[in-house]
Amino acid sequence: MQVKILGSAAGGGFPQWNCACSNCARLRAGALRGRARTQAQLAVRTQNRGWCLINASPDLRAQILADSDFAPQETPRSSPIATVVLTSADVDQVMGLLHLREFQPLQIYATREIQEILREENSIFRALEQTAKQADWITIHASKPLELQSRAGEILGLSTEAFAISNSAPSYAGKSRTGDATGEYVIGLHIRADDHSIVVAPTLPRIEENWVAEWNRCDAVLVDGTFWSDDEMTRIRSGSKTASGMGHLPISRSAGMLRSLAKLTKPRKIFYHINNTNPILDEDSPEHAQVTAAGWEIAYDGMEITL
Amino acid sequence: MQVKILGSAAGGGFPQWNCACSNCARLRAGALRGRARTQAQLAVRTQNRGWCLINASPDLRAQILADSDFAPQETPRSSPIATVVLTSADVDQVMGLLHLREFQPLQIYATREIQEILREENSIFRALEQTAKQADWITIHASKPLELQSRAGEILGLSTEAFAISNSAPSYAGKSRTGDATGEYVIGLHIRADDHSIVVAPTLPRIEENWVAEWNRCDAVLVDGTFWSDDEMTRIRSGSKTASGMGHLPISRSAGMLRSLAKLTKPRKIFYHINNTNPILDEDSPEHAQVTAAGWEIAYDGMEITL
Repeated sequence: MQVKILGSAAGGGFPQWNCACSNCARLRAGALRGRARTQAQLAVRTQNRGWCLINASPDLRAQILADSDFAPQETPRSSPIATVVLTSADVDQVMGLLHLREFQPLQIYATREIQEILREENSIFRALEQTAKQADWITIHASKPLELQSRAGEILGLSTEAFAISNSAPSYAGKSRTGDATGEYVIGLHIRADDHSIVVAPTLPRIEENWVAEWNRCDAVLVDGTFWSDDEMTRIRSGSKTASGMGHLPISRSAGMLRSLAKLTKPRKIFYHINNTNPILDEDSPEHAQVTAAGWEIAYDGMEITL
Repeated sequence: MQVKILGSAAGGGFPQWNCACSNCARLRAGALRGRARTQAQLAVRTQNRGWCLINASPDLRAQILADSDFAPQETPRSSPIATVVLTSADVDQVMGLLHLREFQPLQIYATREIQEILREENSIFRALEQTAKQADWITIHASKPLELQSRAGEILGLSTEAFAISNSAPSYAGKSRTGDATGEYVIGLHIRADDHSIVVAPTLPRIEENWVAEWNRCDAVLVDGTFWSDDEMTRIRSGSKTASGMGHLPISRSAGMLRSLAKLTKPRKIFYHINNTNPILDEDSPEHAQVTAAGWEIAYDGMEITL
């Protein structure tokens, strides 16, 4: 099982186009020890079969072009990318579907609620369905594992099992959705291949106790590293939401990610989906040192995991 | 008046993620003399005031980061980008609006029909309107010039005048739109500053005789260089539309762009929005030689025009 981290930043990337916070300004000036990062994008495959994308980043076109593993192998048109699994309808997780619009067969796995937003509220995603052979949508449900297949029915050797994370629709979605307390709008994923498995969850508002035991049987967890502290955004922009108000448990503090996941001993522990404001992006910061001392890895673009 | 060509390719860019046509395959292999190109994006300003973007490319985040002229000047957040003017609701002209979603004040100019598609059929663009200070939409009409302003009312020193090009909605748009024969779904633009002006039209299904006289009073025309020949796409992918079926007058042939615009003598003549299949991208091709011999320039990413 091969996992590529094509993008490791949260929405907006690092630097963010309109941001001159300490991190972004110092990165632009060459005065920060750290790496630029595109928006979060994972790709998984096993046995050199088709790639499964986890979400579809706004930076997906450049991410595909940067790695020859994703280049078409057959003329005139083709792609080794077989499927996309979505964990939410957030802009930074779905916008990249539109990069994949060029008449390519594609199997897209998403919950009913995520599909409703993309397919009923947004005609632009019909660009993926201009011909009968293009995108096909498969509904996934929490706790029901599925074998992933390509659009042509090829078995990819990967299975996915979703777990429910949040019933909050993205803020752009139709107003009628705010009262839908049962919807699977945000999920996490177990991805399994042969004897190996990973957990992927770029949005985690909390850690449930039973998750920790389950995740401890996995080989790697790639989870929400968006914010260091709860007030990180409100200090940048007045009127902003807190980290928890945006559905992200911050890394620090007594109830944060580091403490809540301290009992994870077996898997590699990797923070990804890291916001441009997060001090762990500065490799000279005490926060960076604290995270790595706790046994965590900080994802970067081009990072690769082989299990 | 300063014009920057941040992206010069048609939808999909060059190379296109899933394309292994002769151009794309040779570019990837380093066997084509020519440049990679991101998707079409122009930026215009005068007197160092705010930038006006013409359309919003799917590659806009990378295009902004590649040029320090577009970096924020004020902490914690800001942008020298003041406005966007849209010429259609095609995916490759509007997708990049979502790159501009980070709570930034923005003035967006578009026809009523383009706005209807984006704002009534697509909830995802509400990401631009999460606060009262974010995007404001201004309706433009063909043949009615408008002074461009920033969201805060600053005069940019630029005016725009649209001319009607097509009443065809993009293929993803609601079915009810196909019968709307009067809608301004595709427009071209005259952009004027002081004594200078340019014409911008990435989609041209035909050339009208009176346009040629008008354009001959401009300093530069940046127009549809999508396809060399009408059957360029049908030869790549069976079932594809012809160039004219997609609303693009090809460059070659007796009724093509070169012949139709042969009487343009005053302005710089620049092809942009160039599809990955177009042989003019190969600098060793006879088609490239023919275009340049006819006095045309072939746009490339990073090209700049000062008037």
